Amino acid sequence: MGSTVVDLPHPFDPLTLGEIETAIAIVRKAHGNVFFNVVSLQEPRKAEMTAWLADPDTAPRPKRVADVVVIAPGGKVYDGLIDLAEVKITKWDLLDGEQPIITMEELQLVEHIVRKDPKVIEQCIISGVAPEDMHKVYCDPWTIGYDERYGSSVRLQQALMYYRPDVDNCQYQYPLDFCPIYDADKGEIIAIDIPKVRRPLSRAPPQDYHPAAVKERGGYRTNLKPINITQPEGVSFTMTGREIEWQNWKFHIGFNYREGIVLNNITFNDKGTVRPIFYRLSLAEMVVPYGNPEHPHQRKHALDQGEYGAGYMTNSLSLGCDCKGSIHYLDAHFPARSGGLRTIKNAICIHEEDAGILFKHTDFRDESVIVTRGRKLIIQQIFTAANYEYVVAWVFHQDGTIQPEIKLTGILNTYALNEDEDTKGWGTQVYPGVNAHNHQHLFCLRIDANVDGPNNTVFVSDAMAGEAAVGSPENFYGNAFYNRRTKLATTGEAMTDYDGATSRTWEIANTNKLNPYSKKPVSYKLVSREVPGLMPKPGSLVWNRAPFARHAVHVTPYADDQLYPAGKHVPQTSGTKPLALTNWIGDGTGSIDNTDVVLWHTFGVTHFPSPEDFPVMPAEGMTSLLRPRNFFAGNPVMDVPPSYVSVPSQVAEKAGGWKGVVDGVSRLAFGREGSGEEVKVEGGCCKK
Amino acid sequence: MGSTVVDLPHPFDPLTLGEIETAIAIVRKAHGNVFFNVVSLQEPRKAEMTAWLADPDTAPRPKRVADVVVIAPGGKVYDGLIDLAEVKITKWDLLDGEQPIITMEELQLVEHIVRKDPKVIEQCIISGVAPEDMHKVYCDPWTIGYDERYGSSVRLQQALMYYRPDVDNCQYQYPLDFCPIYDADKGEIIAIDIPKVRRPLSRAPPQDYHPAAVKERGGYRTNLKPINITQPEGVSFTMTGREIEWQNWKFHIGFNYREGIVLNNITFNDKGTVRPIFYRLSLAEMVVPYGNPEHPHQRKHALDQGEYGAGYMTNSLSLGCDCKGSIHYLDAHFPARSGGLRTIKNAICIHEEDAGILFKHTDFRDESVIVTRGRKLIIQQIFTAANYEYVVAWVFHQDGTIQPEIKLTGILNTYALNEDEDTKGWGTQVYPGVNAHNHQHLFCLRIDANVDGPNNTVFVSDAMAGEAAVGSPENFYGNAFYNRRTKLATTGEAMTDYDGATSRTWEIANTNKLNPYSKKPVSYKLVSREVPGLMPKPGSLVWNRAPFARHAVHVTPYADDQLYPAGKHVPQTSGTKPLALTNWIGDGTGSIDNTDVVLWHTFGVTHFPSPEDFPVMPAEGMTSLLRPRNFFAGNPVMDVPPSYVSVPSQVAEKAGGWKGVVDGVSRLAFGREGSGEEVKVEGGCCKK
Repeated sequence: MGSTVVDLPHPFDPLTLGEIETAIAIVRKAHGNVFFNVVSLQEPRKAEMTAWLADPDTAPRPKRVADVVVIAPGGKVYDGLIDLAEVKITKWDLLDGEQPIITMEELQLVEHIVRKDPKVIEQCIISGVAPEDMHKVYCDPWTIGYDERYGSSVRLQQALMYYRPDVDNCQYQYPLDFCPIYDADKGEIIAIDIPKVRRPLSRAPPQDYHPAAVKERGGYRTNLKPINITQPEGVSFTMTGREIEWQNWKFHIGFNYREGIVLNNITFNDKGTVRPIFYRLSLAEMVVPYGNPEHPHQRKHALDQGEYGAGYMTNSLSLGCDCKGSIHYLDAHFPARSGGLRTIKNAICIHEEDAGILFKHTDFRDESVIVTRGRKLIIQQIFTAANYEYVVAWVFHQDGTIQPEIKLTGILNTYALNEDEDTKGWGTQVYPGVNAHNHQHLFCLRIDANVDGPNNTVFVSDAMAGEAAVGSPENFYGNAFYNRRTKLATTGEAMTDYDGATSRTWEIANTNKLNPYSKKPVSYKLVSREVPGLMPKPGSLVWNRAPFARHAVHVTPYADDQLYPAGKHVPQTSGTKPLALTNWIGDGTGSIDNTDVVLWHTFGVTHFPSPEDFPVMPAEGMTSLLRPRNFFAGNPVMDVPPSYVSVPSQVAEKAGGWKGVVDGVSRLAFGREGSGEEVKVEGGCCKK
Repeated sequence: MGSTVVDLPHPFDPLTLGEIETAIAIVRKAHGNVFFNVVSLQEPRKAEMTAWLADPDTAPRPKRVADVVVIAPGGKVYDGLIDLAEVKITKWDLLDGEQPIITMEELQLVEHIVRKDPKVIEQCIISGVAPEDMHKVYCDPWTIGYDERYGSSVRLQQALMYYRPDVDNCQYQYPLDFCPIYDADKGEIIAIDIPKVRRPLSRAPPQDYHPAAVKERGGYRTNLKPINITQPEGVSFTMTGREIEWQNWKFHIGFNYREGIVLNNITFNDKGTVRPIFYRLSLAEMVVPYGNPEHPHQRKHALDQGEYGAGYMTNSLSLGCDCKGSIHYLDAHFPARSGGLRTIKNAICIHEEDAGILFKHTDFRDESVIVTRGRKLIIQQIFTAANYEYVVAWVFHQDGTIQPEIKLTGILNTYALNEDEDTKGWGTQVYPGVNAHNHQHLFCLRIDANVDGPNNTVFVSDAMAGEAAVGSPENFYGNAFYNRRTKLATTGEAMTDYDGATSRTWEIANTNKLNPYSKKPVSYKLVSREVPGLMPKPGSLVWNRAPFARHAVHVTPYADDQLYPAGKHVPQTSGTKPLALTNWIGDGTGSIDNTDVVLWHTFGVTHFPSPEDFPVMPAEGMTSLLRPRNFFAGNPVMDVPPSYVSVPSQVAEKAGGWKGVVDGVSRLAFGREGSGEEVKVEGGCCKK
């Protein structure tokens, strides 16, 4: 029990501080001073890894390999691999016209350059900012996305401009209307996009959420009583290094600069048989397209994983603030740009929560009853992408369900709006002078399936009314309906969209193994209801750059290193040449029938802002489910201790039932304190 | 603070025990011995009630009126009203060919009659049940729904038959293949539906979930550590009678035999202005159609509220079993059939839960941060409809969101299946000899809107790509998209379905009041993603009987007593004559533009069973949201005390931030115990 530390890193473990140092030293020795963009684990080749997982004692242990990206003087970008055991560079490719991920450090450089730039100062003056107030001018630097005027050979950022009357103001309420373009190699502003219609600085009073502002508005509410959540006997999960075991689940928790949390080798112990379900789960990419067609807003469509990294941007979480209850944390280690090391403490939090009623049934005849409470396990990170916060959680349930859950909070991206200016429906004035543009948040889950083994097949599943007409002998009363399952045999067929009218789901099935009772293939079903289509049109800039978002589901045959559906190096791709997922799908004839497959699922929300979202957004959640269907021979949670059970024979004998794990700590809100005993008195399910 | 008891019942309060007794006495005096089917509050007429709510001191207090339904000898059904102040019957109508709700007591009568019936015994023998084992034969009596052979003048039940080898077995694993029909007036079995293909009793071993069975299979898991949830300083809500106040919300919690929980006069205190939002919210009706077209399975389509009553079937909840934390309970009182009284203790539970992060933002420049935790309030009941359990919760959020949430658990309705018999896709063999038919659970929310006053208008809202082509000057980069809002001006136009492709939502707006910033009408938006269409076809029996399920949304102008969309007396309606909602909509020309409207929303799930659901189902949830959009002038939760805040000026001065309500009770899972202090050490948001 508890958290065991093991010496050798598990092959799925992120690079240790020592391994990152080693990799950096090797590169320096060979190539001198360079900027370190990425030093991250290249995950073991699947074939080697599955062999080792099957027989760790005799199979060769997969090597530790560092995936390295550096920027050398002159903006030369190298993509390399380092064998950490052999202490040698095994790959060192000079990239041509590809831009690697933009690091936080690179973003940090831009603001003070913007503030000093004469042309920017000139534009600030035009907007109504006094030259002596340039220290009140801020920018959120974004990669330029793609701008056909510059292509991808020069490393660029666009600076979204804001003004803060006071250093503590929320900056997004005073947007400036122009957009400087920053050349990372030159380290200077090379151009400024200036709109035809100018929008001088808003003079509206600040609308802040910090304590001083709240105090001015009357202070904080005082009527919230604390809720304490404690686990006096400890938690129900155990950690061995980064491997977790909980309620028949076992899996490895990885983390990288790009996807953030990565879950590997997810298995479920089914009455003593350890059954593989997923080889790897992650949030592989996302895109946040904005809906205002006016130049240069089309450049606002962050592909956050690929352009900035959900790992690089992740928050250091804190006990009692971000996390409540009994929490286990895992740290994250990254290289610093200049070759130092950077650690994010508490990058991942792991905890349990009560999940309400797991199952209950009362026999109406005699009120014999069983009531059993559920529990869930949550693996969570929070990352900050400039204005937005994303809370990403992988929720595990006792019944075999895995629930990816994402909450949005933080602050709307905003642009300036003149008084009485029409938003033309492309945005909403959320505060005087503040235009929050329509946008979507589309998240791409990479689901590397392993349902009772690597050979899986994906079916699309639709609820269909029986074909026969009302009054016909086959369907006289018209109530016939059934589940239509359609096999997706090729990568082309697998490009499928959500259909609300049929409550469409997707089944990842192992057709080589049938459920003993239903005689249907064992499967995991993807249930996802928050599935807006990509609003930008086919052929549009975003559609080109974010192939994963063109359909709710894509399926590809597994291949090592096919991890990132918008490409490994995402900044400044045009998408006009097919990239990543588009290439993997190719002509769409590739077989995905009964083979090792990866399912790419894009879900999310379309957000039309409203004043409720300003100046900071109450969290909005979305979720999907991976549910076992025909996977188990029966309900897998019948052995979870119930709170209370009585069976008919006990009721007949007027005997009490089994007390089970009745929670004696719960209390009545107003007096008549509850207790283990009193539960009998109060108790519905516990009454004699 | 705390729970205050008031003398006079609030006009929205359910009838008190005394009032029920009075009503029964008045009826007895006038009409002698009758069976009491319903004695329930007739809610005050809206005009009187709104006048009184506006000015309780001088406006006349609405009368207490009992809505009474009785069954007199000879099966005569009377529908009456009783003025409790005047102690007189003001209405007494003899119903013609209408059947009132079936009570639990009526259901209880059937089983022992079935066991004694010679023709039933004969069928049991054919099925393989020995005559001496008739005490092991059970039935779930359902209303017959509608059977054209009998019509609606005779009060009928159909007996779904099962066998229990042992009294403690879960009965649904041994279904019998025939279906007796019970005449409630005669008190006898008048017919038996016998299938062409006979299905003798299954000999499969029992598959139970009770402790003895679990023990045989190896016993309960022992690795779940307790989670304690406590509120040492008490709860954050107050009760005045049945009126609750919590986090700017105020509303009345009613309960009746039919809908169960009823929420009335829901208001939100917006910075001192009490704003009405909903006049009344309830789960008004539901239908559970089964998809097997073979006779007599078409009769399986329970309209549970109207046929049995979500109040009558509700569970008595128990502290520490059904409910965890600090709980307040409300009881329910009903008449007994013979004129006595029946109380269900703890029919409603009310409690708070931590809701995770309410909002968070970190400035990437300096890591100045705010993190604030949310809280939710849950009003919940659980009712048992024969085999199924329904957990119905109304969840209130601090940001103005109301979330109706329903969880399904309990046991699948099952039918016999021969070895190697083909289910024909109408069901799934979940265990040898057990066929669980495809079915839907469709719930109809009645939303009596009052968004800043009674005059509201409903819009359907769709996410649409900009019309202009990619490359055109209006949409050069193809990223344009907008929110298309379409007014539903008439009851006909308002018959609308869900559209997953446009992420369709519905806005209940007050067009007489615009948001000061967005200049859009103040509104509440219905966000609902679990919206399968009704699978039974237009013109089918279910489609006829459940008009509310024909579309995701219907809207009608408000009228007193238009509460039940499938009719007040639902058992044995044919639906061939237009009923309830169909009549209220009429020719569809009725105006719902800027008037007092009621929105009927049907949502739910289509359930294709699988062995995981047997013998008892892990709870499956569905939810929808009523969200304020353009309703508030800004984020309404900025005054919720944060866990931690630091602003840039503090970070610059290397000063700590504001500690706020950091939870000092949370702990690290494995050692290095956390504490208020240590939060600083561990803390991301709290680190200097």
